This record gives sequence, C-alpha cells and structure tokens, in this order.
Amino acid sequence: MGRTLTYPKRISNTANRYKHRATYDLGPIHSIINASQVLHVSFNPGPEDPFPAILPMIGQMGSYEFPSASIDEPLDCYLHGYVSSRIMKLACNSEGDGLPICVAASKVDGLILSLTPNSHSYNYRSAILHGYAKLVTDEEEKLWAMKLITNSVVTNRWDNSRVPPDRAEMRSTVILKVKIVDGSGKIRDGGVSDERKDYGNEEITNRIWTGVVPVWETFGEPIRSGDGTLGEVPEHITSFIATKNKQNRALAEAAVKVTLPQEEQH
Amino acid sequence: MGRTLTYPKRISNTANRYKHRATYDLGPIHSIINASQVLHVSFNPGPEDPFPAILPMIGQMGSYEFPSASIDEPLDCYLHGYVSSRIMKLACNSEGDGLPICVAASKVDGLILSLTPNSHSYNYRSAILHGYAKLVTDEEEKLWAMKLITNSVVTNRWDNSRVPPDRAEMRSTVILKVKIVDGSGKIRDGGVSDERKDYGNEEITNRIWTGVVPVWETFGEPIRSGDGTLGEVPEHITSFIATKNKQNRALAEAAVKVTLPQEEQH
Repeated sequence: MGRTLTYPKRISNTANRYKHRATYDLGPIHSIINASQVLHVSFNPGPEDPFPAILPMIGQMGSYEFPSASIDEPLDCYLHGYVSSRIMKLACNSEGDGLPICVAASKVDGLILSLTPNSHSYNYRSAILHGYAKLVTDEEEKLWAMKLITNSVVTNRWDNSRVPPDRAEMRSTVILKVKIVDGSGKIRDGGVSDERKDYGNEEITNRIWTGVVPVWETFGEPIRSGDGTLGEVPEHITSFIATKNKQNRALAEAAVKVTLPQEEQH
Repeated sequence: MGRTLTYPKRISNTANRYKHRATYDLGPIHSIINASQVLHVSFNPGPEDPFPAILPMIGQMGSYEFPSASIDEPLDCYLHGYVSSRIMKLACNSEGDGLPICVAASKVDGLILSLTPNSHSYNYRSAILHGYAKLVTDEEEKLWAMKLITNSVVTNRWDNSRVPPDRAEMRSTVILKVKIVDGSGKIRDGGVSDERKDYGNEEITNRIWTGVVPVWETFGEPIRSGDGTLGEVPEHITSFIATKNKQNRALAEAAVKVTLPQEEQH
C-alpha cells in the first residue's frame, strides 16, 4: 500500500540538471517506454569501432514470470528484431550477463515559447534504461513477447491477425530480453518560465508573445489495402485510433496546466 | 548537376536488412535529423561504466564555414546543451578528434497492419550519424548555432524573442559541433506486404482487415502564458503551425501511396 518502487541511483542514470524533473520511479519510466512507438537502443559494436551504435527498435516492458505484474513493478524490456542484425549476433555471442545496452524513449508534448531563446524549452517525457540483453530461447516466452509487442502497436491486433506464426516466422524473429539494472525518467510540464530581468521589463513583454503550443501524435483514417476483402474497418482498430487521439491530445493540453515547481516560477 | 553526395559505407553504418530501404545520401539523412524535435545522442561515459549512455538533445545540421550550403552538402551537426552535463564535460576533456558519438532520429509515418504479425511494420524515416563532438569555442559560431537551433523549434523564433543572449546566458549554454564521419538512413513507405501463403488464402483474407493507419504530429492551438501582455498569437507562430500541420499530414498520407519495390510486392 502506497509503496513506490524506484531504480537505484547510479552515476550513469542520475540527473545533474533540473533534478526536480527527474524520476527514478518504475511506474512513470515503464509507462514512457511502453508509450513509445520506437525505442532507440544503443550498444557498443566492438573494440574495432570507436562509435556506439543506435538502432530503432520496437519493444515493451513486461514480466513473463509474473504476468500479473503491474507497470510500477519490476519488469523486463522485450525488444523485437531479426536474426541477421548486428545487435542480435552480439547478444547471442555475449558472455555472462548479456550485452550491455541503453534503451531510450522521448516524446515532445509542447513547445515552450518564452521571452528569451535560453528559456525556450519543450514539455516532454523521456526515459532511459540500462540493462543486459540476451536472446529469448524459450519458445513459449518468445511467443508471449511477440504477442505483447504486436498488441502494443494496436491493442488486440494479435488475435485479429493470422496466428500463430509458423516455424519459418518463429525462426526469422528474434526477441531480446533486457534485464534492467537501472533507469531514469525526465518529465517537463507546465507553462513558460522566464527570469525577472525579462518578465519585469515592459519593453520586452509588450513586444514578445509567450505561451505553449501543445504537440501530440495523431492517427488518421485507416487506408484499406488493395488486396483486402474486408471493407469496413474493424472495431479493434477504430476504437484504438479514437482512444489514442483523445488521450494524446488531452495529455498534451493537460501538461500545459500543471503548475511549475517553486524554483521555476519566476 | 545531378550529383548526389553519399556517406562512405563503413561496417558501422551499412544496413544488413531491407537494403533497398537504406540510403547513404546526405540529403535525406540530413533532412530526417533536421525534422526531428528531439535527437538521441549516444556516447560512452568511460571505462568504469559498461553501458553506453543516451541523452535526448536538440540539434540541427548546418555549415558555419559555408552558410549557403544546402541540405545535401557536407554539414556539421550542432547540438545544444548545458555546461554541467556529462557529455559536455567528456567532449571538453576529449583528446584528438573529439568525443565519438552516435546521433539518431526516427519518425513513424504509419502503422502497416497486414495479415500476419510478422508482416506488420511501420512506415517510418530514421537516420543515424557517427561523428566526433567538440565544444564550440568561437563566440560568433556559438551564437550562429544557437540561432539555427532556436529557429528549428519555430521558424523565425530567434528574431521574435529577446536577443542577443547576455553574458550569463552565453556562459550557461554549450554547443557541441559534431564532425560527421558516416551516416545512414532508412525509409519505409508504401502499403501492406504479405506472403502468398496468406494473401492467397481466402479463409484468411475474408477474416483479417489489412491497411495502413497514417500517423503524424499535430501542433495544437497556442495557449497564451499568464504573464504575457500580447493577446494575439503572432504570425510567425500561426504560420509555422499551419504549415507544419499541413506538411506532416500530407507526408504521412502520401507515404501510403508509394508503390512498394518489386521484392516486397507479393
């Protein structure tokens, strides 16, 4: 009751700037990851390459061992990929705990247009996770993760498509399971924040408009494929689109109305 | 005339899967980076940390040396940050060429809802750049980059805010300049692509709806700040919102109509 699980603060995930915006709570961090259509996954390709690599991947938080776990409890990150990709080969060949990776998700909720370029900002939600990635080898867990990830694209899509995958499809798909070591999130909401030297100066405030432009992702009218025989768009798709469009817009507009913390109110 | 500049193919930026979707041309890669409100920047924090780090940052491609350079010509990547951040300290202390980093941007343009979970996909544009990051020390170049980045948030915003930044503002802002070594992009557009075993099976096609849901970013009505004296939203903001909303939607809907390459047409 009332307990909040948080990730340990290590040097790699501790915020140095805008600390009041940082969160280490599992709930909001997992939610940001799950709400992201694309995750950026970083790994080191090997000693011959000085640059870290980043791959765009689809993924979701979940617990195969404890399927009833809620979003604010310990979860693994499942990432979808292909056998031929470099990260899959590295994870397959990695020894010990697995391949050390970083997973990132960011979403802009609004443009903060203030008096000075320096006080310009975004309303946003971002999260990172650090963990060790290994290939899922258990067929049942793999199938479970494939369903989890497919349903994150459109709710209930799995049961409304041709399943189960056949043997060739199972072979060509690789699922990475990331055991999370730490994570952190950053959330900025509220309105414009300027300094007294500017908002106290009428010459400036009479000349420069300040405010917030909410930003959200819109899902449009579904466009039927040429081959399909089904004309009408099924309910699992129309209700997903309606729900998402309403939620996304409400979230971006509600973020503007949040009161800024004391230290940011001018 | 007609020349197309491309990034060299190195092991770190060469696509192994869906090669026909990959591009090494400077133009589309730079465009994807510039269209992204948030870039994910990956770097290695140091030998004591096994995990690469990812930071969300704002940035733009540009050339200070050749300001007239167009989007498909060699450009640097300028990233905005704060003196106190870890990446800035690492870049400041890095020897030789600078801090090796990877910059990534991804944008989903549509959900590809096909017959099987395996053939589900996104229409998307993604790009990565590898390069060496150094702090911009020249004050004039720094100011130029700050203007470039501010105007990427809202066109012409710089001249419609209180400028120039004062000395404290210049000191607290750090701009990283990334000399690009290589880059690559991936663009997926078109409609649904399934395999004959499924689209040739009436039991399946009679049951499962296939098509594309376009996805785009919407900018909402500007919400005026409580302190502002200017009531009417200025033209540089209203026209930016109108243009972006029209462009974003048109791009997502146009992507659906692109004909798939031979190898993906069933």
